[in-house]
Amino acid sequence: MDIIVLSHEAAEEDIRHIIKRLEGWGLGVHVSQGTERTIIGVIGDTSKVTEEEEDSIRAAAGVENVVRILKPFKLASREFKKENTVIDVCGVTVGGRRVPVMAGPCAVENETVLTSIAKKVRDAGASFLRGGAYKPRTSPYAFQGLGPEGLKHLAHAREKTGLPIVTEIMDPRDLEVIVEYSDIIQIGARNMQNFRLLLEVGTCRKPVLLKRGLSSTIKEWLMSAEYIMSRGNQNVMLCERGIRTFETATRNTLDLSAVPVLKQLTHLPVVVDPSHGVGKRDLVAPMAKAAIAAGADALMIEVHTNPEEAMSDGEQSLKPEQFEKLMQELKPVAEAVGREI
Amino acid sequence: MDIIVLSHEAAEEDIRHIIKRLEGWGLGVHVSQGTERTIIGVIGDTSKVTEEEEDSIRAAAGVENVVRILKPFKLASREFKKENTVIDVCGVTVGGRRVPVMAGPCAVENETVLTSIAKKVRDAGASFLRGGAYKPRTSPYAFQGLGPEGLKHLAHAREKTGLPIVTEIMDPRDLEVIVEYSDIIQIGARNMQNFRLLLEVGTCRKPVLLKRGLSSTIKEWLMSAEYIMSRGNQNVMLCERGIRTFETATRNTLDLSAVPVLKQLTHLPVVVDPSHGVGKRDLVAPMAKAAIAAGADALMIEVHTNPEEAMSDGEQSLKPEQFEKLMQELKPVAEAVGREI
Amino acid sequence: MDIIVLSHEAAEEDIRHIIKRLEGWGLGVHVSQGTERTIIGVIGDTSKVTEEEEDSIRAAAGVENVVRILKPFKLASREFKKENTVIDVCGVTVGGRRVPVMAGPCAVENETVLTSIAKKVRDAGASFLRGGAYKPRTSPYAFQGLGPEGLKHLAHAREKTGLPIVTEIMDPRDLEVIVEYSDIIQIGARNMQNFRLLLEVGTCRKPVLLKRGLSSTIKEWLMSAEYIMSRGNQNVMLCERGIRTFETATRNTLDLSAVPVLKQLTHLPVVVDPSHGVGKRDLVAPMAKAAIAAGADALMIEVHTNPEEAMSDGEQSLKPEQFEKLMQELKPVAEAVGREI
Amino acid sequence: MDIIVLSHEAAEEDIRHIIKRLEGWGLGVHVSQGTERTIIGVIGDTSKVTEEEEDSIRAAAGVENVVRILKPFKLASREFKKENTVIDVCGVTVGGRRVPVMAGPCAVENETVLTSIAKKVRDAGASFLRGGAYKPRTSPYAFQGLGPEGLKHLAHAREKTGLPIVTEIMDPRDLEVIVEYSDIIQIGARNMQNFRLLLEVGTCRKPVLLKRGLSSTIKEWLMSAEYIMSRGNQNVMLCERGIRTFETATRNTLDLSAVPVLKQLTHLPVVVDPSHGVGKRDLVAPMAKAAIAAGADALMIEVHTNPEEAMSDGEQSLKPEQFEKLMQELKPVAEAVGREI
Repeated sequence: MDIIVLSHEAAEEDIRHIIKRLEGWGLGVHVSQGTERTIIGVIGDTSKVTEEEEDSIRAAAGVENVVRILKPFKLASREFKKENTVIDVCGVTVGGRRVPVMAGPCAVENETVLTSIAKKVRDAGASFLRGGAYKPRTSPYAFQGLGPEGLKHLAHAREKTGLPIVTEIMDPRDLEVIVEYSDIIQIGARNMQNFRLLLEVGTCRKPVLLKRGLSSTIKEWLMSAEYIMSRGNQNVMLCERGIRTFETATRNTLDLSAVPVLKQLTHLPVVVDPSHGVGKRDLVAPMAKAAIAAGADALMIEVHTNPEEAMSDGEQSLKPEQFEKLMQELKPVAEAVGREI
Repeated sequence: MDIIVLSHEAAEEDIRHIIKRLEGWGLGVHVSQGTERTIIGVIGDTSKVTEEEEDSIRAAAGVENVVRILKPFKLASREFKKENTVIDVCGVTVGGRRVPVMAGPCAVENETVLTSIAKKVRDAGASFLRGGAYKPRTSPYAFQGLGPEGLKHLAHAREKTGLPIVTEIMDPRDLEVIVEYSDIIQIGARNMQNFRLLLEVGTCRKPVLLKRGLSSTIKEWLMSAEYIMSRGNQNVMLCERGIRTFETATRNTLDLSAVPVLKQLTHLPVVVDPSHGVGKRDLVAPMAKAAIAAGADALMIEVHTNPEEAMSDGEQSLKPEQFEKLMQELKPVAEAVGREI
Repeated sequence: MDIIVLSHEAAEEDIRHIIKRLEGWGLGVHVSQGTERTIIGVIGDTSKVTEEEEDSIRAAAGVENVVRILKPFKLASREFKKENTVIDVCGVTVGGRRVPVMAGPCAVENETVLTSIAKKVRDAGASFLRGGAYKPRTSPYAFQGLGPEGLKHLAHAREKTGLPIVTEIMDPRDLEVIVEYSDIIQIGARNMQNFRLLLEVGTCRKPVLLKRGLSSTIKEWLMSAEYIMSRGNQNVMLCERGIRTFETATRNTLDLSAVPVLKQLTHLPVVVDPSHGVGKRDLVAPMAKAAIAAGADALMIEVHTNPEEAMSDGEQSLKPEQFEKLMQELKPVAEAVGREI
Repeated sequence: MDIIVLSHEAAEEDIRHIIKRLEGWGLGVHVSQGTERTIIGVIGDTSKVTEEEEDSIRAAAGVENVVRILKPFKLASREFKKENTVIDVCGVTVGGRRVPVMAGPCAVENETVLTSIAKKVRDAGASFLRGGAYKPRTSPYAFQGLGPEGLKHLAHAREKTGLPIVTEIMDPRDLEVIVEYSDIIQIGARNMQNFRLLLEVGTCRKPVLLKRGLSSTIKEWLMSAEYIMSRGNQNVMLCERGIRTFETATRNTLDLSAVPVLKQLTHLPVVVDPSHGVGKRDLVAPMAKAAIAAGADALMIEVHTNPEEAMSDGEQSLKPEQFEKLMQELKPVAEAVGREI
């Protein structure tokens, strides 16, 4: 249901005009004439009212405000589907009692380094190998990723370790090759509202890890999930990775309260990436623990055998021994909130 | 030149290690041993140091901070090119003394309405027709634009009015058809860091209007311009359209101080879009005047003959008579700052 | 009028309970039963409903949201008083056709420098002398102002130039002495929600210049004006001075769209301080022009004869000759929007 | 040590002028002449350089930027004092292994309700009773607190339960009476930069709980602690309670990464207030657990026996049974990170 607030200068004619339009859409109205404002309560299924129709009411003469009460996402909403979505990726589940960890380097650099890291994170208890073959970089002069060759390295590392892989897509034209190699398709923060990419990814059935945009509200983020789901792909995981605020002590501000908020609004699993959220190695461990305590369904953590020579984001990568220590420390935290690592 | 600040726990060995790497890249160093910190001033052309090399220094043992002094963009910088870039679009210049106005509906809806709006904005003094054939919408259920058919309507309106057209690209696969029809290719705020799209657009020679991302710093925005320019297309205009802040009284916060900041940092023309910046019809006129007073090279303004029935952003569109009045009011403001409309 | 949105799990009993409370406050209700939500429209004068009563409804069982339609400020609202408030300060009006300029150093340093600056800004056309005797500084080790001695220097400069003075209050205990010396009492951004100070200042009848807090919404700012006015002092001017955002190219982000927004919401005069808004000397002039074009009723600009030796904010102070040039440039801009300097 | 970056238009004379001033302050310099920029590394104890002196260098001809390397706070810094500060309040320690919980209503309403809540939170395991006698409210028409009478109710509740009390100060003139009654003096978010209040509180020796301002950086927050400490009161606790961002799903964005950042920068104890951070009852428990996992030294939680009738912030208050359940759930989380409740 929507509510239309009329300005106190709205004429009778303005009100009649609006009611006529609403009735034309098959909706009923309740008009409440207050001492200072008139409000129109809209009755019926307004979920069929499109965004542009709502805008047109908002732009109509005499209208001060339109308050949308129903959530603008459907397939992603908890109301649409009560029980948690549990996604099975090659036998590892995301969204269940166990909290799997996705670990690996920011960018895939070469087969040897990647496989070495993959083995170390698997031995430490990671369930997925992450690594970018296509890298979004703010500068055109920075390393842009190995592309298809990187995908092959990932497949090689999967073969050697058994870890399913997570890798990022940046261009709808790369979908075919990425679907061929990857087990989870990641959509990065900067592409969260690249709507063409979302629609493209919605056409396949591979699980998608959708990162939150740097200045995206939770509602917008769920609308982006809805884009993917509206095309048929229901296997979406949401990944909090920090939002942009005025604070400069951390790379971004990791919004952990998004975790319980999402748990109320949606049935989709929630992943947290503390590495990008804070941007500094020393802060990753406490925030990983906090993420689990807040209810995260999975973690994504950057690990590199030689952070100093990493081609991207070395500053925030854990060394394998740090990662191993963290995995040990996460166990009791997970148990304390009724989960397991 | 870069500056490397060492933590006060940095060992002699750490310092030697860093110096050796810098020297390996052909750079010199000045080490300043303070009472509490040691800093290394890097000498030579650090513009050749890639982002990942810088990151690796930042991740090295003993390093507290790396301060980059040189700007990370080159082709876009005022230092690289002192004089203002003036872009000629079908005989209309952007970046010169005259301040052209781009006007039209948010989305192209049909040929008749579009041509009617086009005639009205031309008669009122607009120099370009704007209108989206491909529309980025937060909801998958909202009108997504007419696509190629919309481009044809734009071409038709251009034929009838003589106004060159500005329209948005959302997908690298659409470049060919958009280049065929459009005179200026717009990249929307949500695609400002869609790096694949930037590179693709960089391969053509059509002028590009690059909107600022909702949470993009001015530096990141110039890096995105650099992406386009690095591929050979130097015809980039930057369009301020509001940033996301905590304030909810306006749709976004129009950052007019970006205009004089950009005038110092870059030679590229600066466009301001007050319609998206404020999101409310009544606020467009004062902010359009303020934009010109702040030094904008061009304006982009939404106009619709029937805002109430517009399929997108009706609330912020001016009616033709309001636009005509605004154009008259802008003239003395432009003259007051040595420009003309 | 308020609207109460009930969650779709609200029981009949919850609804009855809420209605009973509203009726107990002398209010009527319109209940609209939708297919997915029930909403209660509250009828009658809800301006008498206190914030805590509203909160208690929000906390009641079954309530999903409460939407307040009426503005929470009264005395400050345009609805309460249609015509613009024009404040007369020693014969200079703020809020009328003329746009007075308040100029001077950030901090009062000594009598000679202050009087010299005062003469220069008066000769260039300023109408008020600004200068801080009490200075809010982020560091306890920085210069905190001359205190009462600074007030005497201001009075001396007023005597020599005829310019009324504007100076800041930081502590309710200083009200008496500041009222004795100052013509306008300034409340700084960091004290915008120092509610005790607001109440204290509300007890006197001196005009008050209320700066916007760094992260204050326009609504909160008007509530702070309401605090002062609720105690009887109606002579409040609102001063936009930049808000805090993620952008670091400027000290703050000067929110000029606040000017037309305030013009709609309130009858109080609006002042703009571009010096603090941008924090860099070179950006002050374009933003001062933009402020007038956006509809500002007055400007506040920092001027110092020797910015390099200023004890505070030297980086953003204009030199007298720059200020004089700016005053000349502002004249045609003011005329272009139907005002005069 | 500071670094001064000169613009590439800086003249020899500009450089000499700056060096002369630095040497006049007893500092040495290292000049590094790069191909595009010259930088001056300042040698010696720049902690004695005041903010205004730094500003004057920043304002000098030829200067592009000044980078301050040393932290601007001293007494609060981890470098000044390596070991954690542990504050003893009537036998309860804050900053040690145990994580005490401060609980109670937002505002003190009457003796009976307060004492009843106090007993319940004590029985559930709380170590302090919180409650405001003086309340900062955005509206002048809202309940402003009971004042001295509220303090007496707090003292009464302490007598009945043995819980030390935490209450807020809003006005320097109230210090005497608050010191008489309270065990910890709270400074609210809106007063974090009420510098006169900070100085006043610095003159007493009661422990101070300093909340973070809504748009305060971590550095500014530590500077405010430094204000208090510079007057002699070293017993300062820092309380994270959410910052203001664009996200509207929560009242504020609880910045838990501030906890490990503070642990690096300062020796002072860190408290987290999830109630204000999220503003919604259902989100308090997960964020309280996350706060402990992130390393918080204490928690502050709002509890009310009848949230629906609370005079302030009822929407975010836990009911006693919810609080009791939460206290049980926090225990294993604290143990998982080597602490205890």
